[in-house]
Amino acid sequence: MTDKVRLASVGLGRWARVLARGAQRGDQVELYSCFSRDPERRAKFQEEFGIERSAATYEELLADDAVEGVVITTPNDTHKQVVTQALEAGKAVYTDKPIAHTLEDANRIAAAVRDTGGVFAVGHSSRRLSGHREMKRWIEDGRLGEVSLAEANFSNERGLELTPQTWRWYADKSPGGAFIQLGVHHADTLQFLLGPVKSVSAHARKLFTKAEVPDAVMAVLEFESGALGYIGTGWASPGVYSMNLLGTKANLMYDLDFTHWDESHLADDWSTLTSQFYGESVRQPVDLPRTDMFREQLEEFGLAARGAATVEVGAQEAVRALAVVRAVIESSARNGEAVSLQEVIESTQAAPAVP
Amino acid sequence: MTDKVRLASVGLGRWARVLARGAQRGDQVELYSCFSRDPERRAKFQEEFGIERSAATYEELLADDAVEGVVITTPNDTHKQVVTQALEAGKAVYTDKPIAHTLEDANRIAAAVRDTGGVFAVGHSSRRLSGHREMKRWIEDGRLGEVSLAEANFSNERGLELTPQTWRWYADKSPGGAFIQLGVHHADTLQFLLGPVKSVSAHARKLFTKAEVPDAVMAVLEFESGALGYIGTGWASPGVYSMNLLGTKANLMYDLDFTHWDESHLADDWSTLTSQFYGESVRQPVDLPRTDMFREQLEEFGLAARGAATVEVGAQEAVRALAVVRAVIESSARNGEAVSLQEVIESTQAAPAVP
Repeated sequence: MTDKVRLASVGLGRWARVLARGAQRGDQVELYSCFSRDPERRAKFQEEFGIERSAATYEELLADDAVEGVVITTPNDTHKQVVTQALEAGKAVYTDKPIAHTLEDANRIAAAVRDTGGVFAVGHSSRRLSGHREMKRWIEDGRLGEVSLAEANFSNERGLELTPQTWRWYADKSPGGAFIQLGVHHADTLQFLLGPVKSVSAHARKLFTKAEVPDAVMAVLEFESGALGYIGTGWASPGVYSMNLLGTKANLMYDLDFTHWDESHLADDWSTLTSQFYGESVRQPVDLPRTDMFREQLEEFGLAARGAATVEVGAQEAVRALAVVRAVIESSARNGEAVSLQEVIESTQAAPAVP
Repeated sequence: MTDKVRLASVGLGRWARVLARGAQRGDQVELYSCFSRDPERRAKFQEEFGIERSAATYEELLADDAVEGVVITTPNDTHKQVVTQALEAGKAVYTDKPIAHTLEDANRIAAAVRDTGGVFAVGHSSRRLSGHREMKRWIEDGRLGEVSLAEANFSNERGLELTPQTWRWYADKSPGGAFIQLGVHHADTLQFLLGPVKSVSAHARKLFTKAEVPDAVMAVLEFESGALGYIGTGWASPGVYSMNLLGTKANLMYDLDFTHWDESHLADDWSTLTSQFYGESVRQPVDLPRTDMFREQLEEFGLAARGAATVEVGAQEAVRALAVVRAVIESSARNGEAVSLQEVIESTQAAPAVP
């Protein structure tokens, strides 16, 4: 008998494996069940991770009282259905980022979380990277001074590899392309660090990918604090993950080797955070405590399912990250004119019911 | 007797000294005369650099047949008058960047260059940095593949130090603030590397400076090639000078320690250019030949004054860099909407004379 929180994996592709390995590095949660529509895939995943049982249907998985929470890695455009069904079945729900492919779906999920009172977590893992946690400490204790410019990039080569067999190829399933898959991480992390985004100006282009979606996106964010932020995302180059914060007292530069992204227990070994104060000729390395973003977010989620922890990134935070994606798309269609984040969110919410 | 090209310094402040030291590191040009309205300043500069003579008036300096070229570092809003007067006196003219504070003045200077047929050079020195020359080679020989994203930052703390006694404090003398003083370098270098800019989307903010001008500017450029570019400039943080190019075959990351900017013969010692190909976990340093941007541009200018060299950055290139500044200001006033560079240039040109 174990006291680990019993989780079930739903959608058993590459990302489910990355998360399963993260969960198994810890000792708080246990992968207890799994489901994919493909029986062969299901059996293979069950065997690979030594999972006690698998379910023949999603309904069967949700009807299993032993399952305390589900971990969803199905395509973005299925999230609304898969998430709300689990919430309504009384399960705690973790879904990979983005919360959904559209704000309309995200709002429905947020409403289901409110209506059911369920535990809900979204995998905006990157804010948990040790470099970003350290940045947050420097902001909070005043070492950075006031931040005026925050610049981030998240790029890789996936746009050059996409085929029509993958859902990320299609604009209706993955609107915003590189930005909804990669940039959305920085959209969350920058709001974690600097507070809410007020407006977004952006240009999205389809340059080298054969897919329907943009592979080169540049977005300028204005924060409610007044600071300016930049997110660059590309899908047609070797991998980049970086963030620089320029403050009135110091700068912090963070750079992570993308080839180790999936092995989050090693990410800190392949990251550098350097600080720069006035008059220093050489940037100083900042020591980073070891972290493991995938393990930590799943353990937090598992404990939250038992009421023993609070979810850091829930529907509200995830909606604000996805709203940046939507604002990027709308601003680009308006030739870069800034789009208000609040207006984007409100415009996608259903009109309130007449009393 | 010397065969060095005889140059005269005009405007004898901090920057004149940086350039004078650059000229004296080489053996092609000689500082032969100088002028500032302040006699004490003149005498001090003359003594400091061992200059043969000084002129009591600008007219006297220009009437000296021994002076082959003038090196102008007066405030940006005086360039039109100081430059055109020298061109009309038959002198070769080097002016510090930007070519002028407004496109209207820049167009007048360009017209004077055309009308007089004179030699004219603008100090967009940064494109001569060894890292940028190497980037250009990688683009031209195909090692980078096609560039989709180009990101640059040039920032320092000057906005926190400005006082009403300095011309850079004032919006009518230094419109665009940090962007016209720092960002304009990248506006030139990026066009040197990637070809003409088509349009600019930008947000300019006055956050921490007490001056009249913006100290935080983010601009997204669309190049005629289709590539996207980003320039961030701040005036409220420790110094940053960086440029990253993301290509379909490789990335190049360039980083220069700003505290050594003025000593351009040492800049390469305080710079790193690294390359990143697919699958590489560690970026590889790229060897950089030693360069000296201030010396090289003044020697090229001096030789051009004698018809023995061609000026790399003349009126046309400098107008295109300044047009980016103007487009930044106009786009920011339009809430980020993209502004066409060609329209900005044409809108500031006088209507052609009716035949």
